[in-house]
Amino acid sequence: DSIFSSHFRSPPAPKLASKLAPLDKAISTRNRILPQVSSIQGKIEYSFKNELLLIEAMTHSSYHRNDITGCYQRLEFLGDAILDYLVTCHIYQSDSSAEPGRMTELRSALVCNSRFAELAISLNLHRSLCHGSPNLFNDMKKYAQSLKQREKEDRERKLEEMSINDDDSAQVIVESMEDGDIDDDEDEDDDIIEPPKSLSDCFEALAGAVFIDSGMNLQTVWETFSPFLEPLFEKFKNDPPLTPICELHKLIPKDLEVKKKVLSEGKSQCIIEIKDKNICEVATARSYKNAKNFAASRVLKKLA
Amino acid sequence: DSIFSSHFRSPPAPKLASKLAPLDKAISTRNRILPQVSSIQGKIEYSFKNELLLIEAMTHSSYHRNDITGCYQRLEFLGDAILDYLVTCHIYQSDSSAEPGRMTELRSALVCNSRFAELAISLNLHRSLCHGSPNLFNDMKKYAQSLKQREKEDRERKLEEMSINDDDSAQVIVESMEDGDIDDDEDEDDDIIEPPKSLSDCFEALAGAVFIDSGMNLQTVWETFSPFLEPLFEKFKNDPPLTPICELHKLIPKDLEVKKKVLSEGKSQCIIEIKDKNICEVATARSYKNAKNFAASRVLKKLA
Repeated sequence: DSIFSSHFRSPPAPKLASKLAPLDKAISTRNRILPQVSSIQGKIEYSFKNELLLIEAMTHSSYHRNDITGCYQRLEFLGDAILDYLVTCHIYQSDSSAEPGRMTELRSALVCNSRFAELAISLNLHRSLCHGSPNLFNDMKKYAQSLKQREKEDRERKLEEMSINDDDSAQVIVESMEDGDIDDDEDEDDDIIEPPKSLSDCFEALAGAVFIDSGMNLQTVWETFSPFLEPLFEKFKNDPPLTPICELHKLIPKDLEVKKKVLSEGKSQCIIEIKDKNICEVATARSYKNAKNFAASRVLKKLA
Repeated sequence: DSIFSSHFRSPPAPKLASKLAPLDKAISTRNRILPQVSSIQGKIEYSFKNELLLIEAMTHSSYHRNDITGCYQRLEFLGDAILDYLVTCHIYQSDSSAEPGRMTELRSALVCNSRFAELAISLNLHRSLCHGSPNLFNDMKKYAQSLKQREKEDRERKLEEMSINDDDSAQVIVESMEDGDIDDDEDEDDDIIEPPKSLSDCFEALAGAVFIDSGMNLQTVWETFSPFLEPLFEKFKNDPPLTPICELHKLIPKDLEVKKKVLSEGKSQCIIEIKDKNICEVATARSYKNAKNFAASRVLKKLA
């Protein structure tokens, strides 16, 4: 017995009547949680046969008022590999002459926590996620606001560029860039807004939930998530954005020193030094990956 | 049109008559390379419909005498994601109560370059790989020898343990451990034998080649590779081995400093410091990941 297509053996579906809670209590839990998560189905245009899978995907480990399913971590484990596989196939198929290095860069740009966190916000998952953590609440709110702000700035920049193309008055660009620089210059870590990992986690868990609910049907998962992934593929396919640390490694292939310090309270620090250029930048973040990229951005600014 | 099961659209199969070479030259290339790679089919019990895919999977970028296919990198890109997905599904299905952290550790133990390099050697891929690099030849040979040596030592250790259990003479263990310590004490990087990345790469490419050759049939890929992956799953499922760096992070959750230095000639150095214990260990390797794990092993030895 295999694990896919006609022969696959689906794992047992979660059931309301289980060891976790007596049936009447389970029904009341379901009826309480369902309204909070149900709207996701409209957003992704997929109706769950077994709504417990949707509830599981939207349950953070800090949420103690769900006695009918576990938290999203198992589905996240699954969804992560599924999305990676689907995006990989899509990239492989889309261009038979693409250069392998470019394909890998494109995959990294599409399958990464920050991209999935953005998609999670666009699906309003931060409003649906069941959790019991005030910190997480604040982090998600701040992150959602920062995305909104970035979108607004992008729109304004585009409008500005359009008006410049009309007027041919390049001066405006220079002025607006200088304005921007003033805000950016404070090298405080306060301005670092990390995408909360829980957001990308529950996005992946949602993919895992659709996979199990559809009888492990990869095609259904692709049809459900391609409306979100394909536009990103089209946007990035010709020029995939590199993370700041990748860009820096390309720019300075040697004599770069990158130091990781694990601090207390679950924070990590990254110190990047280029000795012969007398550059040293530090950043602190919840994830070391983020700290590294923030420090690399600062080094890139110095080098610019 | 989708990318799997009944509706998938297979990418165009590589053909002998192509832009790369005229047909008579292409046929002579195929006839020259095929005998070198053909035996793999017996080892994995899969016969390629299109042998060009097997040739592509076994062609390193340094090999200039193949004018009929590209090198293995595109298939490696694909095979990497496929194997990750298959192993993930297998782990998810095998135990519905497994703890997510444990599942991730198990996946990392199964889907990693060093494990795939070992499997590549067991399939004799180092003898089949078409390449034009004397360095790669030496690296693969050294690595294959080191695996043989390790197997021999494992066998001897097991025999020793058995005889100790018989005699109940624990003294022997202590003596043999002291013997071993003498060899291990030289802190030279000469004793570091890295698994050549090309070995894990061509193992992944082989999985990608079977996937395309079978019409993107994941079940065929699983049936072909599970005889190699399932025994590892059974071996590690109850106690997945952590990499030295993971073990170290678990042991010393904070005040650990890990520094990466990119040296010339494509080498990376890792320096691990624990200041309040006055420990500082350095290792250099071709991949930073290996350097980090070698340095972490040394720190763990000091801490032991």
